[in-house]
Amino acid sequence: MVGGGPGAFIGPVHRMAAELDGHIRLVAGAFSRDDAKNNAAGRAWGVADDRIYADYSQMITAERAREEGAELVAVVTPNHLHFEVSAAALRAGLHVMSDKPATLDLAEARALAKAVAASGKLYGLTYTYTGYPMVREAREMVRRGDLGKIRKIVVEYTQGWLSKPVERDGDKQAGWRADPALAGVGGCIGDIGVHAFNIAEFVGGALVERLCADLASVVPGRILDDDCNILLRFAGGARGVLIASQISAGARNGLRLSVHGEIGGLTWSHERHTELTVDWLDAPSQVLHAGSAYLSAPARAGSRLPTGHPEGFIEAFANLYTDMADAIAAGRSDAGLVPGIADGVRGMAFVETAVAANGQGWVDLESAA
Amino acid sequence: MVGGGPGAFIGPVHRMAAELDGHIRLVAGAFSRDDAKNNAAGRAWGVADDRIYADYSQMITAERAREEGAELVAVVTPNHLHFEVSAAALRAGLHVMSDKPATLDLAEARALAKAVAASGKLYGLTYTYTGYPMVREAREMVRRGDLGKIRKIVVEYTQGWLSKPVERDGDKQAGWRADPALAGVGGCIGDIGVHAFNIAEFVGGALVERLCADLASVVPGRILDDDCNILLRFAGGARGVLIASQISAGARNGLRLSVHGEIGGLTWSHERHTELTVDWLDAPSQVLHAGSAYLSAPARAGSRLPTGHPEGFIEAFANLYTDMADAIAAGRSDAGLVPGIADGVRGMAFVETAVAANGQGWVDLESAA
Amino acid sequence: MVGGGPGAFIGPVHRMAAELDGHIRLVAGAFSRDDAKNNAAGRAWGVADDRIYADYSQMITAERAREEGAELVAVVTPNHLHFEVSAAALRAGLHVMSDKPATLDLAEARALAKAVAASGKLYGLTYTYTGYPMVREAREMVRRGDLGKIRKIVVEYTQGWLSKPVERDGDKQAGWRADPALAGVGGCIGDIGVHAFNIAEFVGGALVERLCADLASVVPGRILDDDCNILLRFAGGARGVLIASQISAGARNGLRLSVHGEIGGLTWSHERHTELTVDWLDAPSQVLHAGSAYLSAPARAGSRLPTGHPEGFIEAFANLYTDMADAIAAGRSDAGLVPGIADGVRGMAFVETAVAANGQGWVDLESAA
Amino acid sequence: MVGGGPGAFIGPVHRMAAELDGHIRLVAGAFSRDDAKNNAAGRAWGVADDRIYADYSQMITAERAREEGAELVAVVTPNHLHFEVSAAALRAGLHVMSDKPATLDLAEARALAKAVAASGKLYGLTYTYTGYPMVREAREMVRRGDLGKIRKIVVEYTQGWLSKPVERDGDKQAGWRADPALAGVGGCIGDIGVHAFNIAEFVGGALVERLCADLASVVPGRILDDDCNILLRFAGGARGVLIASQISAGARNGLRLSVHGEIGGLTWSHERHTELTVDWLDAPSQVLHAGSAYLSAPARAGSRLPTGHPEGFIEAFANLYTDMADAIAAGRSDAGLVPGIADGVRGMAFVETAVAANGQGWVDLESAA
Repeated sequence: MVGGGPGAFIGPVHRMAAELDGHIRLVAGAFSRDDAKNNAAGRAWGVADDRIYADYSQMITAERAREEGAELVAVVTPNHLHFEVSAAALRAGLHVMSDKPATLDLAEARALAKAVAASGKLYGLTYTYTGYPMVREAREMVRRGDLGKIRKIVVEYTQGWLSKPVERDGDKQAGWRADPALAGVGGCIGDIGVHAFNIAEFVGGALVERLCADLASVVPGRILDDDCNILLRFAGGARGVLIASQISAGARNGLRLSVHGEIGGLTWSHERHTELTVDWLDAPSQVLHAGSAYLSAPARAGSRLPTGHPEGFIEAFANLYTDMADAIAAGRSDAGLVPGIADGVRGMAFVETAVAANGQGWVDLESAA
Repeated sequence: MVGGGPGAFIGPVHRMAAELDGHIRLVAGAFSRDDAKNNAAGRAWGVADDRIYADYSQMITAERAREEGAELVAVVTPNHLHFEVSAAALRAGLHVMSDKPATLDLAEARALAKAVAASGKLYGLTYTYTGYPMVREAREMVRRGDLGKIRKIVVEYTQGWLSKPVERDGDKQAGWRADPALAGVGGCIGDIGVHAFNIAEFVGGALVERLCADLASVVPGRILDDDCNILLRFAGGARGVLIASQISAGARNGLRLSVHGEIGGLTWSHERHTELTVDWLDAPSQVLHAGSAYLSAPARAGSRLPTGHPEGFIEAFANLYTDMADAIAAGRSDAGLVPGIADGVRGMAFVETAVAANGQGWVDLESAA
Repeated sequence: MVGGGPGAFIGPVHRMAAELDGHIRLVAGAFSRDDAKNNAAGRAWGVADDRIYADYSQMITAERAREEGAELVAVVTPNHLHFEVSAAALRAGLHVMSDKPATLDLAEARALAKAVAASGKLYGLTYTYTGYPMVREAREMVRRGDLGKIRKIVVEYTQGWLSKPVERDGDKQAGWRADPALAGVGGCIGDIGVHAFNIAEFVGGALVERLCADLASVVPGRILDDDCNILLRFAGGARGVLIASQISAGARNGLRLSVHGEIGGLTWSHERHTELTVDWLDAPSQVLHAGSAYLSAPARAGSRLPTGHPEGFIEAFANLYTDMADAIAAGRSDAGLVPGIADGVRGMAFVETAVAANGQGWVDLESAA
Repeated sequence: MVGGGPGAFIGPVHRMAAELDGHIRLVAGAFSRDDAKNNAAGRAWGVADDRIYADYSQMITAERAREEGAELVAVVTPNHLHFEVSAAALRAGLHVMSDKPATLDLAEARALAKAVAASGKLYGLTYTYTGYPMVREAREMVRRGDLGKIRKIVVEYTQGWLSKPVERDGDKQAGWRADPALAGVGGCIGDIGVHAFNIAEFVGGALVERLCADLASVVPGRILDDDCNILLRFAGGARGVLIASQISAGARNGLRLSVHGEIGGLTWSHERHTELTVDWLDAPSQVLHAGSAYLSAPARAGSRLPTGHPEGFIEAFANLYTDMADAIAAGRSDAGLVPGIADGVRGMAFVETAVAANGQGWVDLESAA
């Protein structure tokens, strides 16, 4: 991994996501230019000391030289470094998984495309939303023609966390995003507008051919745009609207997509990401749920749990394990909020009492002893 | 880990959850009594061959003998083995994290309580729902007295997957749950009713003192209950209702809790687990969102992402990484649905075009080249 | 109309509802025992002075004597008068529409049943919820067998407005409901529990045969119950739970019904009354919307507006008309929030400007002149 | 009333709305140019035969000549007649309530503005959505500055009912809307776009100064627009987007408004019209409910029912009354789905049985007798 040290938001997400299914392990990294932070990050994640590198060049060279060196590099730096790190990794014969955007600007992106082609290696870009099961289901519905010819696509991605000039108050996440040298020419449009753009094309199945943009820097003193409203025309004739904002105070992370065809329309919302709502001209609306057997193969493949278990289930479980690990590491004699054997006894008392007294009216539930 | 081999639902969840935060690694296991399945599970999860054991006794003995042997045992077998595995691990000086219920019956649970006390080791029980940030927030609200004295608690946990006698059609998950020898005296009540019971006490802050139960075996031929309706009386005077069902056809996994006090009430629903709704006698309703800065410490500690990023975010990310890992492992030249450099170029073209033409009306977006 | 004078909640609802479709007019009434209030109510509703009566007996006698006297009596008094007013009206040959409950107690109800039979007149009881289009659709679905044999019915009706002893602070609505002489033996159960009971049988299609009740008077000093939890067994074998509460602080008027059969389940909630959600064992969930062409005849007949126009549409419209009527009555030169011709000009300017400049980029919208 | 005869959608809404609060009566009309339809409409609504007029001129003349003639004219004709009817009524000294848009085009609208001013009479325009309590609350919040300076306004009004060329299949509603001679230059924009425009200015509190429009006639052969996407700039600097569509197949009548200021944002949706959601930068979200005591005076004034009683309550009630009226008119001996005395007896049996057996376990509920 390159980047992702303390204070980063997306680095830890890459680490957790990469390791979740047990096929990938974080084994090496150059997490921060600051030595202390670099070591802290590496050790927290179980990386051996000799594979915590001072910079990405050292990392690439050393890992290529190891017998069982890393095969895939996760690029999670600020935008301005995406190109050079990705290109170097590819040249060295490593696969790349890069956070978005691919590069700082279009020229770099084109150069990187050539580098990918020349390398024969895989290059992946984490437009996260393409990974949601119900986004993949939506794409399948459009591809199969379920909705008829697509006529209209509206995508809205609203946040409010840049409503104040927090980049001038030391917010690291806001800081680099507001600096053209690190973020590129796009502010909100480059940070979240591209996600909206990508998902519109990914699901809608047609490329944007023309656009009419109204970008604004709403917060006084901000250089880059923090609010975007864009009219779209797609190949094939569909019209669309893309709204992205980081100054919609109160909004959290509201990505919402609707695609309408001749006979029906679908809506997907990030805050309800396990559901896909489909409305029809002449029939009841449908709600498709992640994890269901009736979904398409790409959607089914994206769920680790039965339907009705929102993906937060794993994290809730992980909270218990992490509390337990903390208690073990600290040598504590209890694990805080983690239910313990007293809760276990109590549960069994509940079950046995209820079964024994079934249909017989009121009985006492003795407190566990 | 003991149990959790191929076909299990909860074993993989334990593995992913335990490893998520990087503090715990799965290093050893006895995953299945079937040799082939045991090895398959261990290898899929990166366990070294010499730490894949034929049974839990071997595992405990061998791991205790290693210099850096396992410290914590995850018990994910069917219910009837929970006691013996947990007790053996504790006796050997290992911490235990057990899937619920703690044991097959109350007598075993009481015996295990003594074993825990004697061992001086930690024992955790994965009543999963206690790990959700907004469940912890709800508990804090009740403890702080925000709602006034608690008067009523309603908890409903409805599933529909046992609406047909699938245990007689080879469904492994349904099979052991329907067999009293493996599951204990409780069917639905032991499988999900205890979760509902536990969350009601965990959040409501008072113990159940009396109950009046109506349990039924609705599907013909089923021995254990598959539907439960129970009236509750809590210490302190609150009344309550617990509804649990596995034959509510169409229901997915609908756990829903409401707690009402003298001046307000809260509602939490598993299908919207990042939200906590609070209604007041004389003021606007509130919706609290996971990850927000205004939450209590226990709730904040349970989120890995900023507000508005539902926890499925990690899994969506992981889908991209897993597709990438699959492509690498298979030596494929593309990574399927994972966005690639062409998408990266396209995104940059979108940003640059929109910024350059901002406010100038319609322009073409050239297809990437 | 008998009852419904100033301070009443349900009287005005009866008047508006009765007149809504233009088939019924309020022409006479005995609205209050207090002369001034009686006259005020009658005049506000356009009743001729000579048809505002001092009591219901006078009203019945006088109206029967008129050539075109009233045909239908709406009984909207407190519960303890329902019987005598209804019986008197029926004896006089008038049809009756009574607010619920039918009478103060069961003995009266049985006597009234005889009176209805003897009279040959129609007797209707406003269990309001049976009038909702989607409740009628739900009933049809059960009757048609869409869900298979019914197994479970859960109905919940929660309010919070009696969380404090408001009946002792002069709240007229709370006052008579808390007084056994006026309300009967049931408090919450008689006020809203019967609605829940009625809708469960109306939709579920089977009668309750057995019950197990836990009723409480939660607010200190209150005589009648204000919280009810009841286990139910229906003819045919379905089990059920009925929860009714008026001390669930923060709850507004949350009536919610779920009915599960062998292959699917339906859920209807009063706060989303235009929707009916249906979940299936093996297929996407469905949401049926009031006013849709695909609904059953009884459901279609209950909508006055196209789908997507929630019934509040009429009231929103009525707010404009009422503001207008107020302005006319007061001789004011403007009608407050009612949009006027300036808004009309502005709207036309918007339309013409947008149409004229379609596709041509930015243009000014001149302020109306 | 002028217009609104059989087949019209909005005429009956005007009639019900005008009469709802008992301050206005429909006493006269020219409902249709077709004699039979004209008489049918008038009689169905209880208008005396001698006040059903052949055309609006006759109506105005005759009503002005009556001692207690009509004071207010409701104009519910197709758009092309709005001007002449409204102007004639005003000239004759009558108040006017007109359906929107005010006139066929801008020139007429300006002429009508002069006519209103000259008449000294009131002129109201039914931009319906301004009548919703929670829209009025939203307006108050913006006016009070609760959200800080307004930065962004997004309004979306989507329908799908014109997804096919139904105007060529005899759909009367679609027919006149698709004909420029009757509807004016705007199709979708004139029909629903102006509602969206009006509500954006009504709530947002600032006028649109510039716009950039993308209108399309998506259905082949249609002359007027059926889909609109418009970028907006408001006085004071706020940006906005207006989306209106009648070809979003599956959409019902989805009007949705969001307004974001410096410190918070509000969202109102027609399909959940009793709720107003407010999101804050640093505090829990709020949901305000219609009918609550904490609302502003304009919002409180717009509710006829306690909170939690969606306005459909009146219509549900009305369904019972109408079924009753039908049964009376037809001389039937039962009133169909209207609950009757058997239901009344049953309800009382339920209450008495539950109260008598409270806390005593299971008892039989005898079927009513």
